[in-house]
Parts: sequence; structure tokens; C-alpha cells
Amino acid sequence: MEHRRAAVEALASLGPELEARYAGFKARGLKLDMTRGKPSPEQLDLADALLDRPRRGFGALDGTDGRNYGGVDGLPEMKELFSPILDAPPEQIIIGGNSSLQMMHDAVVRAILHGVPGGVGPWARLPSIRFLCPAPGYDRHFAICQHFGIEMLPVEIGSEGPDMDQVEELVLSDASIVGMWCVPKYSNPTGVTYSDHVVERLARMRTAAPDFRLLWDNAYAVHDLYPEGERLSDIISACRRAGHENRPLAFASTSKISFAGAGIAALASSPANVADAKRHLSIQTIGPDKINQLRHVDLFGDFAGIRRHMRRHAEILRPKFEAVAECFERELGGNGVTSGIASWTNPRGGYFVSLDTPDGCASRVVAMAEAVGVKLTAAGATFPRGHDPRDRNIRIAPSMPSVAQIRGAMEVVAVCVALASLRALEATARA
Amino acid sequence: MEHRRAAVEALASLGPELEARYAGFKARGLKLDMTRGKPSPEQLDLADALLDRPRRGFGALDGTDGRNYGGVDGLPEMKELFSPILDAPPEQIIIGGNSSLQMMHDAVVRAILHGVPGGVGPWARLPSIRFLCPAPGYDRHFAICQHFGIEMLPVEIGSEGPDMDQVEELVLSDASIVGMWCVPKYSNPTGVTYSDHVVERLARMRTAAPDFRLLWDNAYAVHDLYPEGERLSDIISACRRAGHENRPLAFASTSKISFAGAGIAALASSPANVADAKRHLSIQTIGPDKINQLRHVDLFGDFAGIRRHMRRHAEILRPKFEAVAECFERELGGNGVTSGIASWTNPRGGYFVSLDTPDGCASRVVAMAEAVGVKLTAAGATFPRGHDPRDRNIRIAPSMPSVAQIRGAMEVVAVCVALASLRALEATARA
Repeated sequence: MEHRRAAVEALASLGPELEARYAGFKARGLKLDMTRGKPSPEQLDLADALLDRPRRGFGALDGTDGRNYGGVDGLPEMKELFSPILDAPPEQIIIGGNSSLQMMHDAVVRAILHGVPGGVGPWARLPSIRFLCPAPGYDRHFAICQHFGIEMLPVEIGSEGPDMDQVEELVLSDASIVGMWCVPKYSNPTGVTYSDHVVERLARMRTAAPDFRLLWDNAYAVHDLYPEGERLSDIISACRRAGHENRPLAFASTSKISFAGAGIAALASSPANVADAKRHLSIQTIGPDKINQLRHVDLFGDFAGIRRHMRRHAEILRPKFEAVAECFERELGGNGVTSGIASWTNPRGGYFVSLDTPDGCASRVVAMAEAVGVKLTAAGATFPRGHDPRDRNIRIAPSMPSVAQIRGAMEVVAVCVALASLRALEATARA
Repeated sequence: MEHRRAAVEALASLGPELEARYAGFKARGLKLDMTRGKPSPEQLDLADALLDRPRRGFGALDGTDGRNYGGVDGLPEMKELFSPILDAPPEQIIIGGNSSLQMMHDAVVRAILHGVPGGVGPWARLPSIRFLCPAPGYDRHFAICQHFGIEMLPVEIGSEGPDMDQVEELVLSDASIVGMWCVPKYSNPTGVTYSDHVVERLARMRTAAPDFRLLWDNAYAVHDLYPEGERLSDIISACRRAGHENRPLAFASTSKISFAGAGIAALASSPANVADAKRHLSIQTIGPDKINQLRHVDLFGDFAGIRRHMRRHAEILRPKFEAVAECFERELGGNGVTSGIASWTNPRGGYFVSLDTPDGCASRVVAMAEAVGVKLTAAGATFPRGHDPRDRNIRIAPSMPSVAQIRGAMEVVAVCVALASLRALEATARA
């Protein structure tokens, strides 16, 4: 208590200065939308050759006319390009349209209405459908669950990935847990890459449900900020070795490689899952846009081309992430009065910084920042049903604004964190 | 009987000649795939400017960066372009990806899992789900029904569209009939355009199901073969006037206008249906490919541009359809021995000729043609569950081959029809 009172007093002494700074932000008339992880125009410019006529025209390697109908699972050369991204052989890959989210959504819908290979029927027949949701996580994953009435069980996520003791216990004890969302590399928003040990445990664990699926959203597979990227071990092989070949459904897209709204998505899985998905897809569509696949193959050529391209993204993104870290370190780090109030991640890739305020402060920080023109992802968005039980997590998306804008915005966020913390401490002290 | 015996004898007298001709086809070593209504490379060439950099680049009229995320329902300028095709105001249009089939499939899935505006809940809760299927019709529509366990009730289709007496009686008496597939213009495969009277009755009819939907696949809205196209009256206005605003879900695409595999699809409906679809779409995807929308707006400009473009398609397609008609007329028409055996359509638009052989002959004709290298759409494919109760309908798809190839192929088909008819008559005579 002594310590807390001292902290309150020290922070309180900063109050007038913080209030003055906050008032100053209002005067600046900021207007910045940092709600989503959108690439910046400079990043999109890197792929502008996609707009031009592909050098190879409209003809695929196997002679297919990319302009015409056909090819429900995509062109072989596009599968080749995705193969090292998804750690899967081309024949275990299905190319989709421009949205991996749609491929995930549709995989869930197929399972609900028809069931999955190795399953006992449509998930719709289960008394309830439950998914494990490492949280904080990706709001659009949670939105899919909510939309279809899938109950979400949050799982803590630590520095190596989800809390596997918790995961193993849950999946073993409850046969209605048929799925788990994973963003295994540079996770949204925590930036965590699942350790080899976690991947291995996910592959091996026994599940009560015979048709349990890992929805492995490898959205940031090649999205390193630094020359040495973090290494994610290969879930498809790990599951096969563990005798759970049909467990993983791995997704990736070029949304944050080429064009965010006009890229190519893909799914990789076991031969049985791929055959099953193709059977359903052949009812849903005559096939995805092959011309855009040819454009992508033309632009990148091969995996080395993608690696080169991603280094150019990193050159644009790295200074933005470093600006966030510098600002938070200066304002909320070191040995100052505000030190230790908040914690944040320093990711080595991906699109987000995850900021934890003191409990009960995140909503207030987001509201305060918005009031002075800095729109952040809604507090709670990173948790199932938009409810952060500790109201502390804020997802920072630094990709879109300029470095200068980020510096301004993060100063706002830091001051809001300090002010919100001060008010919370005062409220506690009064209570 | 006298007449039949005379016909058998006359046809039988032709037998040796027909056999000789059929044997001759084998020697020709034909190899032709006419199974699907694919545009020819020459048609696709008409839109090759789609491959080039759009003159307007990546910026939409409202300033949207077409390369980035966003815009779940498409760009305003793309909606404008579809507005006269779909007879709907832009704000009642949703732009999709490259596949209108996918938009139809997804609309059915949404209705099954969530229900529709004005409905009493998810269709999945109905004791059974039934659709009316004017037949012969489009196999991919029927495949969607079959895939989701929707019972299909075939309805006769005549020169003005579906038999409305039958339709009205069925929808009024059975609340489990919640949908009806329609290809209202240049119908697949009959080429029929629904008359104003039929459209009006479809709009006005009373249905036992409160949430009955017309799945209005206007695939050939601007696909006239002749300068004066057939006129289809506007289902969206007709339903609104009749107090059934939420009844129609109208679909179209540029698949057979620009690139078959890389076009743009769209849905038009009532404000309530559109809002409902958007709500679901926002869970399924972040948005469709806007760059391809910009390319299309750039290529066509406006509806007059589409009309001009379609006249160029017609110049390529018309001689092919006329070659089919000429061959059938020569081989199976006039006053000759084989006259009256078969009947066929002379469509003024669309992609197909519908050929009716004598009852029980279609499968044999398709098999005989395939045996000499002419692959036709499977017999029965134009009926629910692939079963043509009279085994007489064959869908001819003349778009892909050259005029010379069509002449050769249709001669094969005509001879196969005559031979199959002869054998069927002989079998009857023996019986």
C-alpha cells in the first residue's frame, strides 16, 4: 500500500503537466485512423507492376488460358509460389480469391453444414460448437465464431504462444471443442511466434473431438521486420508425423505482400482435407481469378523474389515500429514516474504492437485518444465478443501513418495511458 | 401405327447411309469439347485491354486506393456500371468477386444458416427445403440444391418461361418451397426470355412461404446475338410494386462480357436484402478485388460501352449459332425422311441451343457422339439430379469451337440423332 500511495503521489505530481499536454493535443487538430493493419501507399507502390500487362500475358505454364473458365483450385505456378510460404507441397494447396478470411469463413461454414473428413457429421449437429481462441487475438476470427454461434473459449497467450497446459486440458475434456484459431507467426496483435515446442504440442495433443481443426492463419509468414526473421516450425508435417494429418488448415495470402485488396489467398492441408474442400468449391464457383495469379507469378517469380520484396516492405515498416517503441520507451519506460504503468511488445515482424495498460484503463485510453483525433482499434476488439476481461489491451497498428504521424500519435497514446492510469489510481485510492 | 411403320421403314431405308456416315466420322479423328458454355479466345481478345494498366490507375472516383483493404460491397463506379444491367439503382447493388455462382451459392448458404429478411428463421429449421427448378435449366444451380439437400421440384418451361399455372399452384400450397431458380433471359439452355406476363405473375403470386426468394440469374442480360435483343421486364420493380420487395435476388456478371474467369459479379435486391447480405459479407471478407473493378470501369466506361462491346461478341457468336441451325435444318428439318424427329431452339441470345431428340434417345446420342470425338454436355445435365425423365434434351454449346468445327460436330450430332431414333423406332416396332 505504501508503494501504491507513493506511485499515486508521484504520478499525481505529473497530473497538471499531463493535462496540459493533453489539452495541447486538442489544439493540434490531429486526424489519424490507426484502427486497422493496412499497408501504406508506399508499400502498395512496391507491387505496382501488378497493374501492368504481365510479361507472360494470359497463358499459364500448362497452356491454360487464364482469361477463361476453369481451374477451381488455382494454377500450378501459383501453388508453387505459395508452397514455401505455407510449408506444403503444391498438390496440397488450393488457391482462392483475394481473401484468406473468406477461405477461413468458408471452411468453417463447410464444417458446420457438411462436417469434415474424419468427423462424425456436420458440426451443426453438435449440441454446441466451441473454439479455443488465444487472446488477445484477431477480431475477425472471433467475429466468424460469433456470427455462427460458435462459443469461444479464450486461452492465454504468452511469449511462446498459447498456454498449452490449458489448451491440452480443454481439448481433451470437451468433445464440443472442434476448432482453435491460431496466428502462429508474429501473432495479431502480440507479435508472438509460436515456439517449436508449442507447435509440436498442438500437433500431438489428444483431443476429445475426432474432427478437431487448427485454423492456422499464417498471415505474417514472410512479414519479417529484421533480416533474421523468426522461424515457425511446419504444422502440416508436425501433424502428419503425430498421426493427425487432417488437423491443420493453414491459410496465407499476399494481401500484405502485394495489394491488400487485390492479392491472392491460399489454403494448405492434408490430401483428404484438400480433396474435400475442392469438392465443395466446385459447387460454389467455377474457379478463382487466374489472371491475378499470373500477375503475381510474373511479379515475384519465386520465393526468393518474395523474400526480396518483403525486405523492401521491412525497410518501410521498421522505422514505424521503432518510432512506436521509442515513444513508449521515452514516455512510459526507463526509470521515470510513469515507468512500469504499461507494457508493450517489440515485435520482429507482423503488423501490430500490443499495448497493455493498467487493468481497467484501455477503454478510457482509446476514448481519450479518439477525442483528440487519434482513432485506435476499439478496446476489447482483440478479445472474443469484444470483451477484454481486464480492459487493458490496445492494438496499435503503425503501418499506415508516416513516421512523423506515428510519433505524434504515440505521444498522444502515452499521455492518455498516463492520465488514465492516474485517474484509475486516484479512484482506487479514494475507494 | 400405319404412320409409325411408314416412318420406321423410311428411316430404316436410310440406315445403311447413316451407318456409313457415322463410320466415316470415326475415321476423321475428331476431338472437340463442347461440354461447357465457354467463350472463345477471339471473344476474350476483345477485352485484352483489361490486362494493361488502367488509364485511371488504382484510384477510385471517391479517392479510395483500389489496392488497399476496404469496401465490402464494391466501388460506386462499378455499381453504376451494373445498374442498367441489373435494372436496379446502384445503392441496391453489391459487387462481388469474379463469380456470380459464388454469390448465389453464398446467398443460399446464408439463408440456410441465418434465414432471410422477412423470414421466420434459418431455412435449416424447416422440415424440408424445396426449390422450384424450371427444367431444362442450368446444372450448376441444381448442383447447389443437391449439395445442400434442397429438394428440387422441376417445372416445365415453355416459350414464355416457366409454366406459371404450375408454379402458382405449387408455391401457394407448400410452405417449404422457399426458392426458385430462374435464368430469365436467353435461358440456359432453352434460350427463352420470360415474357412480361410471366415476370408479372412471378412478382405477384402468393406464396405459402413468407420468405420465398426468386434466384434471378440474369447471366445473359446483354448477350444478344442480333441487333434487336429480347426485352426482359424488370423483376425488382415488379416485385416492389406487387408488395414483394424482398422476393428477388438478381445476379449478373461480366464473365461472358469481359473475361470468363476474371470478370466481376454482382447482386441486386431490395434495400433490406442488400443490407442483410452486406452484414454477412463483412464477416466473410474484407472486400472484393477493387483493382479488377477499376479495370472494368476503365474498359467499358458506361452501359453504351458494354452494348458496343457485346455487339462485337455477337459478330463472333452469331455465325456459330447459325451454323448449328443450318446443319440441323439441313439434316433434320424440311420435308425429308428425318424431318420431325428432333426439335431445337433458334435462340436470339445467350450461349446455348437446346436440342430435343425423340424420348429415350439423348443419352445414346451423347454417347455415340463422344465415341467419334465430339464431347457434348452430359445427357440429363439440364435436369435436377442429372435426370431427364424423357431422356431427350441435349444442350449444345457452340461458343468455343470455330464455325468449321461446329459444322463438323453438328453433322455428327444430327447423324447420331437419326441413328439413335432409328434404333429406338426399331426397338419399338419389335416390341
